[in-house]
Amino acid sequence: MGAIQARLPLFLSPPSIKHHTFLHSSSSNSNFKIRSNKSSSSSSSIIMASIKVHGVPMSTATMRVLATLYEKDLQFELIPVDMRAGAHKQEAHLALNPFGQIPALEDGDLTLFESRAITQYLAEEYSEKGEKLISQDCKKVKATTNVWLQVEGQQFDPNASKLAFERVFKGMFGMTTDPAAVQELEGKLQKVLDVYEARLAKSEFLAGDSFTLADLHHLPAIHYLLGTDSKVLFDSRPKVSEWIKKISARPAWAKVIDLQKQ
Amino acid sequence: MGAIQARLPLFLSPPSIKHHTFLHSSSSNSNFKIRSNKSSSSSSSIIMASIKVHGVPMSTATMRVLATLYEKDLQFELIPVDMRAGAHKQEAHLALNPFGQIPALEDGDLTLFESRAITQYLAEEYSEKGEKLISQDCKKVKATTNVWLQVEGQQFDPNASKLAFERVFKGMFGMTTDPAAVQELEGKLQKVLDVYEARLAKSEFLAGDSFTLADLHHLPAIHYLLGTDSKVLFDSRPKVSEWIKKISARPAWAKVIDLQKQ
Repeated sequence: MGAIQARLPLFLSPPSIKHHTFLHSSSSNSNFKIRSNKSSSSSSSIIMASIKVHGVPMSTATMRVLATLYEKDLQFELIPVDMRAGAHKQEAHLALNPFGQIPALEDGDLTLFESRAITQYLAEEYSEKGEKLISQDCKKVKATTNVWLQVEGQQFDPNASKLAFERVFKGMFGMTTDPAAVQELEGKLQKVLDVYEARLAKSEFLAGDSFTLADLHHLPAIHYLLGTDSKVLFDSRPKVSEWIKKISARPAWAKVIDLQKQ
Repeated sequence: MGAIQARLPLFLSPPSIKHHTFLHSSSSNSNFKIRSNKSSSSSSSIIMASIKVHGVPMSTATMRVLATLYEKDLQFELIPVDMRAGAHKQEAHLALNPFGQIPALEDGDLTLFESRAITQYLAEEYSEKGEKLISQDCKKVKATTNVWLQVEGQQFDPNASKLAFERVFKGMFGMTTDPAAVQELEGKLQKVLDVYEARLAKSEFLAGDSFTLADLHHLPAIHYLLGTDSKVLFDSRPKVSEWIKKISARPAWAKVIDLQKQ
């Protein structure tokens, strides 16, 4: 199963958010605002945010970006993409993301896509705001953070995302889980998690003693897999399990999960 | 086919380089040195390089790092990993790369793995040497370079590497190419290359007007695919074809190909 199939879950657009955009201050969800697209910006209650995220809160790639925005304490506007209606393949969205995927980010006149490029931009551009996420001071820690960012993208995610697709999203789409695929993916993921277990016996977080983007990038797929029988892969590894508890307990992550319930 | 299978080609160790290490100055291959592992560092003819690459020159991931070292005009020592003998799964190598893959890089007391993290480290740490590879000056160009670095890692490589495995490396291992897999992968790669064609109609290189790491990262897989019938995917797209000619013609890349012939 290739990357395109693995990206299928990201195409889900919950009907409840179809006709709204959301405006957030990440310092608290209490000043959370919803506006109808039709009411437009003429409403005096609208605070204009310069950062716009085009995506849906159920998508793992969008969740990665939302978690970063909350960690960085940045105000942003979430503009839902109606993927069931194929909005992601229409010209307006393709101008933001030529692969017809979500998310896309606008920050002033800068447009970016690929969730991992977006989070790194936010961490560097807003280095003085909120959590650090990438060390700029120590070249060794920065390089090590980059190693574990690549480990997530190249070793963990290809297996974890496909496993989440088999175990979670196929059901949502009325498709049937393939037990052989699950077995193969779990086998591969176990080998990856064995390396994580050894790593996390030496340092509290993947890149060292601080929470970084490398940890954060894992949260979306882990979140979905914890609701499945694959949970045992994480639970059976004490250091991995401890790490997941710690990174899942971050207030920024709780806000992402809250957002899915809106 | 998952990431682990796609990495199989990287496990190839040409017997000709089994018992040697190579010492390079990237400014020219004329002062290229070979030393036997057994002669060790006691030989007076050895220039000690602080940068050590553990890998093999046939591996796409190692090629990515070698190309970067040559572009940055850095002296380095290439230490072959005897993968046929399983050296990559032994303790000494696992201490450098816990996934038992190649390459690994040592720079003084810093050890790094994951080729894309290594190239980014080299580009940033040695920003004043050789080619720029990542713009540090313009935040927009830097963020855009990051987008296309992610596009290579997430959209291009998963398809291109597996295709190279089917078309090139399976033959080397005495395995049979699966025509259905080739067709599926070519279909996916075509969609990706359509986006590249549109992008390269707007800018000379992926991230803008200059050659960057985002271009360089594509070279190894393209190199192998150009020797197969999949070449037509590139040739049939004028802008992609022009781009490949330009990036393949770089002297640093010629040195990587030369190294494969040693």
